[in-house]
Amino acid sequence: MKKVLFATSALVLSAGFASAEVALSGDGRMGVVYDGNDAQFGSRARVKFTLTGESDAGLSFGAAFRVDQENYNANRFRSAARGTAGAVWISGTYGKLSMGDTLSASEAAIGDLYEIGYTDGTFVGDVEEISYLTGDGENTDQGPNILYEYSINNFNLFLSASDASDNDWPGATGSDNPYYDEEDDAFDPADNDTDTDVAWSVAGSYNGELANGSWMVGLGYAKHDDAKEITLGGEFKTGGFSVKGIIVDYDERGEFTLQIDDAPDFTLALADYEYDRTYGLSMAYEYQAWTFEGFWRRDEFEAITAGFDDEDFDTFGIGAEYDLGGGAVLAGAIADSDYASDTVADFGIKFKF
Amino acid sequence: MKKVLFATSALVLSAGFASAEVALSGDGRMGVVYDGNDAQFGSRARVKFTLTGESDAGLSFGAAFRVDQENYNANRFRSAARGTAGAVWISGTYGKLSMGDTLSASEAAIGDLYEIGYTDGTFVGDVEEISYLTGDGENTDQGPNILYEYSINNFNLFLSASDASDNDWPGATGSDNPYYDEEDDAFDPADNDTDTDVAWSVAGSYNGELANGSWMVGLGYAKHDDAKEITLGGEFKTGGFSVKGIIVDYDERGEFTLQIDDAPDFTLALADYEYDRTYGLSMAYEYQAWTFEGFWRRDEFEAITAGFDDEDFDTFGIGAEYDLGGGAVLAGAIADSDYASDTVADFGIKFKF
Amino acid sequence: MKKVLFATSALVLSAGFASAEVALSGDGRMGVVYDGNDAQFGSRARVKFTLTGESDAGLSFGAAFRVDQENYNANRFRSAARGTAGAVWISGTYGKLSMGDTLSASEAAIGDLYEIGYTDGTFVGDVEEISYLTGDGENTDQGPNILYEYSINNFNLFLSASDASDNDWPGATGSDNPYYDEEDDAFDPADNDTDTDVAWSVAGSYNGELANGSWMVGLGYAKHDDAKEITLGGEFKTGGFSVKGIIVDYDERGEFTLQIDDAPDFTLALADYEYDRTYGLSMAYEYQAWTFEGFWRRDEFEAITAGFDDEDFDTFGIGAEYDLGGGAVLAGAIADSDYASDTVADFGIKFKF
Repeated sequence: MKKVLFATSALVLSAGFASAEVALSGDGRMGVVYDGNDAQFGSRARVKFTLTGESDAGLSFGAAFRVDQENYNANRFRSAARGTAGAVWISGTYGKLSMGDTLSASEAAIGDLYEIGYTDGTFVGDVEEISYLTGDGENTDQGPNILYEYSINNFNLFLSASDASDNDWPGATGSDNPYYDEEDDAFDPADNDTDTDVAWSVAGSYNGELANGSWMVGLGYAKHDDAKEITLGGEFKTGGFSVKGIIVDYDERGEFTLQIDDAPDFTLALADYEYDRTYGLSMAYEYQAWTFEGFWRRDEFEAITAGFDDEDFDTFGIGAEYDLGGGAVLAGAIADSDYASDTVADFGIKFKF
Repeated sequence: MKKVLFATSALVLSAGFASAEVALSGDGRMGVVYDGNDAQFGSRARVKFTLTGESDAGLSFGAAFRVDQENYNANRFRSAARGTAGAVWISGTYGKLSMGDTLSASEAAIGDLYEIGYTDGTFVGDVEEISYLTGDGENTDQGPNILYEYSINNFNLFLSASDASDNDWPGATGSDNPYYDEEDDAFDPADNDTDTDVAWSVAGSYNGELANGSWMVGLGYAKHDDAKEITLGGEFKTGGFSVKGIIVDYDERGEFTLQIDDAPDFTLALADYEYDRTYGLSMAYEYQAWTFEGFWRRDEFEAITAGFDDEDFDTFGIGAEYDLGGGAVLAGAIADSDYASDTVADFGIKFKF
Repeated sequence: MKKVLFATSALVLSAGFASAEVALSGDGRMGVVYDGNDAQFGSRARVKFTLTGESDAGLSFGAAFRVDQENYNANRFRSAARGTAGAVWISGTYGKLSMGDTLSASEAAIGDLYEIGYTDGTFVGDVEEISYLTGDGENTDQGPNILYEYSINNFNLFLSASDASDNDWPGATGSDNPYYDEEDDAFDPADNDTDTDVAWSVAGSYNGELANGSWMVGLGYAKHDDAKEITLGGEFKTGGFSVKGIIVDYDERGEFTLQIDDAPDFTLALADYEYDRTYGLSMAYEYQAWTFEGFWRRDEFEAITAGFDDEDFDTFGIGAEYDLGGGAVLAGAIADSDYASDTVADFGIKFKF
């Protein structure tokens, strides 16, 4: 049996196929999330399918999606069979082309801050994740997105795009309402502004080597309609120590409604703001079976509603993990975010199968 | 290839994992259900994922759910990825701790009466199943539940609980409506009584050995808000003969609406009743490839609406099975229930893969 | 490891089972669909479970469904666990009996015209598929359907039926609304005409051999309520050349609403028509790694709304495929249909895993 990373695997031998494989992997977690008022149980179990093959000429191809990403009738914008979750790809000497619910070029190049806790940051609303303008669940009203990745020497190039059409058509998922207003995320019969703007992104990154580690720097640009996004990120690893920083500058990102003062935990709000800028820094240190992680992040919002000031939202988080081996990791974290009125925490165990 | 019960299995070998496995198993059935008026086709096919692993120190862990238990967007209270279907567990010398849509302690200790027919009792509304107060689909508005199981010598201890919070929070599924009225199973803006009562259960059972068989006796207690449940059950097996009896006494279980006289088959009803008590007896006899099964059960309801009498609902059922080998079993059953106005039956074939 | 066609497979060895298997296979595609106005990305990834077993006496049994065919809570009429998607079967010397969302006898005997394009015809609304009166997604409001297939010498017999009951009952899926009007596909409280008519079909086909090829001719009849369908089809294969023709005559098929003149692409319409007749011809030619395909089809509609003429809808399509080996096929097609106001096309790559 060949060596496969994180995946249960079985080969198929058949007349027409040199090799074609459907591999199963999974993850799970169980523990307690403290939401600032209550300690709540939090658990999950998931299974992922990874499909791989190779053409006679050596072109690799594949697809991947999780069981929870196939909601065929419940949510057509989260369905691998409709191209709006998971992805399909081909890969060869000229790079890799993916289609589906792909990452944007910027996200593929730079990614997010480090995750903390057994819920991988979910207990604090995944604040370690950067809100990229395109890809990864965005723009799926236009159906599948594409991502092209190419590496030469230590330089990596990324390009991503939507198809500039939200029209639903057999074989190509989309929002079939011509009056869908993307900015409001609502259907407005008075608004004939269909979303026919390509949501695209271009990014590059460079991987450097050190005597005792590595470094990466990445730059990305994304655009959709009037909205723009510039992302700069860098990471440095040496010994067991890692540090990663990300700065994102948005322009015309659209209006958000925020509740100021004692914002009650991700709920409705009172004043209109524009999301202006985000930046953050995360660090991790590995020592034997232990990993210690932390991050800080600030989101800057510009007031649009008259009489309100601009607002900064800060989030701090620290966590620790202990690797039990065999795919099981004990983990806990604590975070304080201006998005939530209380300090929140989690503690539990997470699994890889 | 190692010996695995009821599961197609493939091992994974990878750098970080001693062993981690995603096993597939399945079941199916096809046949005819007679609903008292019509003979209807009834079939199904299901696949189950069983994920297992072991830490370096020998702690076992795993998770299991079926494809039909992952309704991520359609029903957040029946989704393994949200912890409201299937379960995740860790298991060691100190017992087994499960989280997710677990059984209650009482159900884990005592269980249900014997299933009959190729639909395993579904043709008569699964009347062989005891309606336990907590766990197994109940209390999932509070998110995942926990179940702890520990065995020493022949004594088994069970503890289960919900987390006393129906607040939705990232990483911890719940009902995010503060006005959710659990008793009415409805959202009532006038009712501010959020469900912050732990739904819990404690139970014990003892397994005894006989020269030619075995016996079990179990006792369980469960509580949620004002509702209480005491369950007593026992089973006796000798030769090919088995008998199992269960008595459950409820207190303040809440109001049910029942249609009296000619109750039309699981439909709406006219008077309010409180579910007071249920008790039943089931028997099975195995002879070569044959199994003969039967059960009787009575549910007692106390009238709340003035002018109505207390009501008893009786259900009788008998069935026979013939094992074809290889996982295929021919089965049929007939049942008469006061819940349905007619005698109902099923006949078909069921499969294990 | 044994040779399995199109399926990743792993055997299970267990006490009670001679052999029982859950096999995984999958498919994917990615490319561009031109809808007449826009070029849209179109991709998908799917995984299929195939469950097989054999009884001690040599009776084969199994089941199959895809992940996207299990929408337990979102759509009870597209759920393998409810018998309304995928199928379960037993098979022996007396033929094969399937239950679930089976094909009708006519469709099992004769099938559809050849698919073109990387979306297998979906880009033009799957016009190569015949709209059979029963089975394959039809009649699932009555729950599972059955299909019986038996072959002797070169003659194949097919029988299919629904169960003549749309009543929902535990273990037997159905539409539980007694006022469901099947013709209007809507719930009408004034219409007490429940669908208690068997939807059935009977068909036969004969396979002949040639020195350098084969031929097939099939005839089918289907009936549901007042609607009738007669299908005649034939196929001829020699060398790399194939041709297939199908004629279907409907009677009392029910009213369709069509928008005449410049019918805007599968949208709402203005006049009532009855679907009278459809016939088509498809051809394919294989040369080395290439396959060239084409089809023509005409649908005849009889006007019911006064003042409108009868209408014929013609569809032409041609396509080409290039087999890259290993399960990957490059494919593109162009089609012109009276159902769409524009010529449409697709081009992409499709995969089998």
